[in-house]
Amino acid sequence: MKDILELIDNNQLNQARNLIIGQNPVDIAHFLEEVPLEKILIIFRILPKDLAADVFAYLSSEQKKYIVENITEKEIRSILDELFLDDTVDFLEEMPANFVKKVLRSADEKTRKLLNQFLSYPENSAGSVMTIEYVDLKKEMTVQEALAHIRKTGVDKETINTCYVLAEDRRLEGIVSIRKLILSDAEVKLQEIMETNIIYAHTLEDQEDVADRFRKYDLLAMPVVDNENRLVGIITIDDVLDIVEEENTEDFQRMAGMEPSEKEYLKTPLWSLAKHRVIWLLVLMISATFTATIIQRFEDLLQAVVLLAAFIPLIMDSGGNAGSQSSTLVIRGLALGEISTGDLFRVLKKELAVGIIVGGVLAATNMLRLFYLQKVGFLISSAVSISLFLTVLFANLVGGALPLIAKFFRVDPAIMASPLITTIVDAVALGIYFLIVTRLLAI
Amino acid sequence: MKDILELIDNNQLNQARNLIIGQNPVDIAHFLEEVPLEKILIIFRILPKDLAADVFAYLSSEQKKYIVENITEKEIRSILDELFLDDTVDFLEEMPANFVKKVLRSADEKTRKLLNQFLSYPENSAGSVMTIEYVDLKKEMTVQEALAHIRKTGVDKETINTCYVLAEDRRLEGIVSIRKLILSDAEVKLQEIMETNIIYAHTLEDQEDVADRFRKYDLLAMPVVDNENRLVGIITIDDVLDIVEEENTEDFQRMAGMEPSEKEYLKTPLWSLAKHRVIWLLVLMISATFTATIIQRFEDLLQAVVLLAAFIPLIMDSGGNAGSQSSTLVIRGLALGEISTGDLFRVLKKELAVGIIVGGVLAATNMLRLFYLQKVGFLISSAVSISLFLTVLFANLVGGALPLIAKFFRVDPAIMASPLITTIVDAVALGIYFLIVTRLLAI
Repeated sequence: MKDILELIDNNQLNQARNLIIGQNPVDIAHFLEEVPLEKILIIFRILPKDLAADVFAYLSSEQKKYIVENITEKEIRSILDELFLDDTVDFLEEMPANFVKKVLRSADEKTRKLLNQFLSYPENSAGSVMTIEYVDLKKEMTVQEALAHIRKTGVDKETINTCYVLAEDRRLEGIVSIRKLILSDAEVKLQEIMETNIIYAHTLEDQEDVADRFRKYDLLAMPVVDNENRLVGIITIDDVLDIVEEENTEDFQRMAGMEPSEKEYLKTPLWSLAKHRVIWLLVLMISATFTATIIQRFEDLLQAVVLLAAFIPLIMDSGGNAGSQSSTLVIRGLALGEISTGDLFRVLKKELAVGIIVGGVLAATNMLRLFYLQKVGFLISSAVSISLFLTVLFANLVGGALPLIAKFFRVDPAIMASPLITTIVDAVALGIYFLIVTRLLAI
Repeated sequence: MKDILELIDNNQLNQARNLIIGQNPVDIAHFLEEVPLEKILIIFRILPKDLAADVFAYLSSEQKKYIVENITEKEIRSILDELFLDDTVDFLEEMPANFVKKVLRSADEKTRKLLNQFLSYPENSAGSVMTIEYVDLKKEMTVQEALAHIRKTGVDKETINTCYVLAEDRRLEGIVSIRKLILSDAEVKLQEIMETNIIYAHTLEDQEDVADRFRKYDLLAMPVVDNENRLVGIITIDDVLDIVEEENTEDFQRMAGMEPSEKEYLKTPLWSLAKHRVIWLLVLMISATFTATIIQRFEDLLQAVVLLAAFIPLIMDSGGNAGSQSSTLVIRGLALGEISTGDLFRVLKKELAVGIIVGGVLAATNMLRLFYLQKVGFLISSAVSISLFLTVLFANLVGGALPLIAKFFRVDPAIMASPLITTIVDAVALGIYFLIVTRLLAI
């Protein structure tokens, strides 16, 4: 691709054009990332209209903005004509309001109306990710007529692999795949071969639920209907793959105690990165002062046996790790639909059992190490080991229960992950430790 | 679906059959999960052959095993005939070896040879997830001939949406989508319309890399070729969606300090759950003894000012949380291909800057709280706040760097997450804390 820049520098635009046309739009967009903005415009303008729109959909929002700000309204209109509606909506959602107005002005009235409607769907709803470029058929059509209709209208559709059979009032009556059409006799009517057991989404439904159904039923596309069951759009699987990764990223970030952000790490401005992280750190730090209070209350005990302080981090960390294991498994199980809130007692039973095994192994190992290898006194070794066991047990139960309880109260379970669990477990671990130490040392 | 069980109890098998036939295979399989094993067999036998195979693919491995053990070899063969090869391979991979032998005995020779070949691909390779039911065309064919060929052979193919143009020696020469075929003139030759800029996978390539390319290029299917560039199979996007979630689950589990497992939480046996967790807990616990050693070394200092112990958890936890934020962002960025090992210095610069901001905010807040609200002495308040600042800074750098270093040495970056970072940060935090306290108190 390097040659392209050279050709452009030498003003050999036709050769550059020929070289670039054979490339995949994704690769062209990727290549443009490294190209200075003013050259992007030149390259963009030598692309054929449809390829230009394809490439445009994959550019970064800065590049999109730069291009649209520097081309004529007529050129904008021609890109909008070629872009699929969902890509236009994606693009406009990232842009400032006055800029959106400029783009909307360039669109014809029908597109403008549609765009306004799409832009009004809540973020992350099925409506906000759907596209309207689908093939609609009538159930009275024969296979032959349907194929002829697809040939006539299919060029502008995002997918023809699944076609939608609509009633006069646009209610969705059935689905027929291109595969079924191709493999059926030409004279058969669609109503005889269409699938009527339809899996669909509502416009306001959360995209995560939509993605779950795609995965469950191995779908390639899903119709989106409004309250009157009229077809308003479709969601295609290539967008679902992006949704799945987006939702996973959100979970990863929440689980590490951050406000989620969709921006790429290296492209996120410093202040935004810091802001997304500092809130939870502050909350957790202030909650952690609770541990300081507990330790202060047992100051006399620590004064008497300073060695006790040495094992605090060990117990707290093991508890935190055990708790975050449990919570991670449960949060992930909830996200994949493998666990539901009704499973609370099954989860608690399982975590109790695992806690006994795992806590037992840890406590025994710790006892061996402290008492036999490090020659720590029997009472302190025992106190540390028993505390370790009870802390792990408690951590497992809390880690298993909290995500389910959050889900029940419609809070994102991903919040109940490592950082929060660690803070809770820390306080309890200290309480357990000092209680046991006091009891044992008093004997 | 409840009615179906009733009908079967009353031996009204025909009615049951009619009721069940209209359902989605995924829903039927889901329904069968709640049905006792012996009834599953009855229901399974009243299903038409192709629906039975579809449902079979979605059953749990226990149910699959039960069914295959209780039906005749002829029935097994008829299921194998209807199942797509990738589903058969999935199923056999979960079964014990002697059982696989029994199933292979039931297959015809060609299928047996293929299955043996597929079963020999390494787990999680492109070869292990591909299927061979694709449509192959020749470049000399016209569109009309190609469509006729698809009509003749398409019924048994997993997808006809993308078709593959092969040379005589089965080398992959081009790809043509059904969309292109439908929208092109009947007399055009395939070589004129086929896409020759092909994105493909190698049989031994990791499935995660394959999934990344699906996402990058918005593909619906990808051809898999061997070393001689011959087409040996295809991977379809419905399987990629499962791969993506599988890989994410693996990352979530590794990042919480567990050995990854593909089994659903509620279906994982107790011992296996405990085993997957206890190893890392032990490793981390034993590493944590390092912190105990540090504390023991400063026993005299703690004896003199017991209050110092109270702030250890606060500093350690904040550092751990900050470090796991950084490592999570970098691990996720690596997984999505947004960050590469070459970005080490950009990441470090960013983490340094974020660390200064975030650490500064935490330290200032802490100073206010300790010194002004809780009336802790100035020296100790300062020591705690400075340690907090330096610990957060260090945690950010370690959290940012370790995943990149792991990736560079071809270790899964997900291991460098919260638990490990916390353990490292703990030790360093203690060192920083005691060092600063000693210096400040000595003034």
